[in-house]
Amino acid sequence: AGRTKTRRDDDDYHEEAAVGKSIYMVSDGTGWTAEHSVNAALGQFEYCLVDRGCPVNTHLFSGIDDVERLMEIVKQAAKEGALVIYTLADSSMAESVRKACEIWGIPSTDILGPITEAISSHIGVSPSGIPRGAAGRNVPLSEEYFQRIEAVEFTIKQDDGNLPQNLRKADIVLVGVSRTGKTPLSIYLAQKGYKVANVPMVNGVDLPRSLFEVDPEKVFGLTINQHVLQAIRRARAKTLGFSDETRSNYAEMDHVREELEYAGRVFAQNPAWPVIEVTERAIEETAAIVLRLYHDRKNRCLMPRISKRY
Amino acid sequence: AGRTKTRRDDDDYHEEAAVGKSIYMVSDGTGWTAEHSVNAALGQFEYCLVDRGCPVNTHLFSGIDDVERLMEIVKQAAKEGALVIYTLADSSMAESVRKACEIWGIPSTDILGPITEAISSHIGVSPSGIPRGAAGRNVPLSEEYFQRIEAVEFTIKQDDGNLPQNLRKADIVLVGVSRTGKTPLSIYLAQKGYKVANVPMVNGVDLPRSLFEVDPEKVFGLTINQHVLQAIRRARAKTLGFSDETRSNYAEMDHVREELEYAGRVFAQNPAWPVIEVTERAIEETAAIVLRLYHDRKNRCLMPRISKRY
Ligand SMILES: Nc1ncnc2c1ncn2[C@@H]1O[C@H](COP(=O)(O)O)[C@@H](O)[C@H]1O
Ligand SMILES: Nc1ncnc2c1ncn2[C@@H]1O[C@H](COP(=O)(O)O)[C@@H](O)[C@H]1O
Ligand SMILES: [Mg+2]
Ligand SMILES: [Mg+2]
Repeated sequence: AGRTKTRRDDDDYHEEAAVGKSIYMVSDGTGWTAEHSVNAALGQFEYCLVDRGCPVNTHLFSGIDDVERLMEIVKQAAKEGALVIYTLADSSMAESVRKACEIWGIPSTDILGPITEAISSHIGVSPSGIPRGAAGRNVPLSEEYFQRIEAVEFTIKQDDGNLPQNLRKADIVLVGVSRTGKTPLSIYLAQKGYKVANVPMVNGVDLPRSLFEVDPEKVFGLTINQHVLQAIRRARAKTLGFSDETRSNYAEMDHVREELEYAGRVFAQNPAWPVIEVTERAIEETAAIVLRLYHDRKNRCLMPRISKRY
Repeated sequence: AGRTKTRRDDDDYHEEAAVGKSIYMVSDGTGWTAEHSVNAALGQFEYCLVDRGCPVNTHLFSGIDDVERLMEIVKQAAKEGALVIYTLADSSMAESVRKACEIWGIPSTDILGPITEAISSHIGVSPSGIPRGAAGRNVPLSEEYFQRIEAVEFTIKQDDGNLPQNLRKADIVLVGVSRTGKTPLSIYLAQKGYKVANVPMVNGVDLPRSLFEVDPEKVFGLTINQHVLQAIRRARAKTLGFSDETRSNYAEMDHVREELEYAGRVFAQNPAWPVIEVTERAIEETAAIVLRLYHDRKNRCLMPRISKRY
C-alpha cells in the first residue's frame, strides 16, 4: 500500500508540472475582486504564460461563507499544491484560512484584509466584518445603482448610431470607423455609469448633423493602425459570412486606408475632439484614457484625477 | 504670518472633517484594479458611509508611469492627509511611493506587490516589472479578447428576445418578467465572454418555441419580490413617460402579482431551469450565482468552482 501511495503521489507531481501551477481564489462574495487582482498580477508573468513556459490555472470559489466549506477548499488546495488567495470579510474566517494554509504548508495571501485595515485606521471606523450578500443585509437600491442600469440601457439602444437625435442626451459620444471597438468600449463605459452614444464613420455616408451640434468636449475620436484594422476586418468579414465582394471591399487595404484618411480629415476639422489611438490597447485601457480626459476637462483647475464620493 | 498659517490649517482641518477623508488611488495602468479593491473594502464601512457618519472621497490617478508625477501626487496626498493605495508594476516606483509616504507621514498600501510576490514565488518566475500599456509592449490580440467582443455584440443584438431563433447560439439564456434586470445582467455576463440571450415573460404573450428546444441546462429564471418589483416599475414608468393608464397597468400590484405568478407557473413546468431570486442582489452578485451554477453543471465531478487557464 505504501508503494502504491508513493507512486500515485509521483504521478500527481508529474501531472501537475505538465498542466501548470494552481491558484485558488476564495471569496465570501462574488470573487470578482480576487479575480480582477489576480488577473492584473498575472499580467506581470505574461511573458512566460504566453509561451507556456509557466502555465497557470486559476480556480474561483465564490460565496464561501462557512468554515466547513472553507476548510474543504484549503484541503483540496493542499492536495494540488495551490496558492490560496482570499477575500473574506469575517476576520475569524480570514484567520482560519491563514492558519490552515500554514498548517498544510501552502502559501496564502489576504487581499481584502490589508486594504480594509488601512482604510479602517485612516477613517477611524471599524469594518463591519459582514460579507456582501449576507442574509439580512439590506442592500439599498441606490441612485447610483439605477443610474448605471439606465446608462447600460441607453447605450444599448444608442449603439451604432441608431438614434442620432439622442446624441445630446449622451455623456460621451464615440466616433470612429468600423471595428475601432466603439461598441465594446461604449458598453464598458456604460457599466461605469456613463451614457454613451457611438457614431460610425463610413466614407461616403454623411455624419449626422447632431454630432456637430453637441458639446464637442464630450466627443472622442477613435483611430487605429491600418494594418491591424485590416486584419481585424478580415477576421470579422469571415465571421459575418460576407460575400467575397463585400468582404474584399470592407477589408481591402486601399479601402481601409481611404476610410481612415476620411476619418482623419473629419478629426482635423474638429480639433476639439481628442483622438485616441486604440491599436494595442485593451478596451479597459482605452476606457481609462477616455474617462481621464473626460474628467480633466470638467475639473480644469485640479491635478488630473477621477473623484467619487462615498 | 504664523497666526494666519495656523488659522488656515485650522480651517483646513474643519473643512476636511466636514467633507470627509480622502483615499488616493494611484496606478501605472488603468486604475480599475485599485478602484475595484477599494470599492470592495469600502463595503465594510457602508453602515457609516450611507448615513454620512464617515464620508469618504476617492481620487483615482491612472497612467502614472514616471516618478515626477508620482511624487507630485504623494505631495498633494500629504497636503490633504490622504491614504495612498497603489498598484505599480515597477518595483522601484512602488518603493519610491512607499518611502515618500513614510517621509510625509501618511499611510500607504501596496495592492499589487503582495499578490505578485506570492505568485512569483509560487510559480518560480520573476515578475516583468513592466506596467501594462508600457511603450513597446506588444499586446497580443488574443482569442479570448475577440471572444469577449463577440459575446458583447451577440448579447446586444439578442437583447430583449429580439432574435428568438438565435437562442441556441447563446451560452446562457435568461428568462424573467420585465425589470428583473435581464439586460444589465446579460451585459455583465457578456463582458466576461459569455454569449447571453434574454427572453422577457409577459403574461398573455407566448414564449418563443425555441426557448423549450434549447438545452435546459443553459436557461436561468429570474424572480423578484413583488413589492420591490412594483417600486422599480413605478420608477421606470415615470422615466419612460408612460401614459397614466399604461403606467398603472404596468406597475399595479395586481398586475405585478399576476405576472410573477405566471412566471412561477412557467418555472414550475421547467424544473431543470434554476430560478434565481434577484431581490436585494446587485447585478454582479446575480452574475456570480449564474456562473457558479453554469460551471458546476459542466463539471459535475469537481468541487464547485470556475476554472481558467493562463
Ligand atoms: N457592498 C459590500 N458590503 C460588504 N462587503 C463587501 C461589499 N462588496 C464587497 N465586499 C466584500 O469584499 C470582498 C470581495 O468581494 P467580491 O468581489 O464580491 O468577492 C468580499 O469579502 C466581500 O464580502
Ligand atoms: N496585462 C498586463 N501586463 C502587465 N501588467 C499589468 C497587466 N494588467 C495589469 N497590470 C498591472 O497591474 C496593475 C493594475 O492594473 P490596472 O487595473 O490597469 O490599474 C498595474 O500596475 C498594471 O501595470
Ligand atoms: Mg473576491
Ligand atoms: Mg489599479
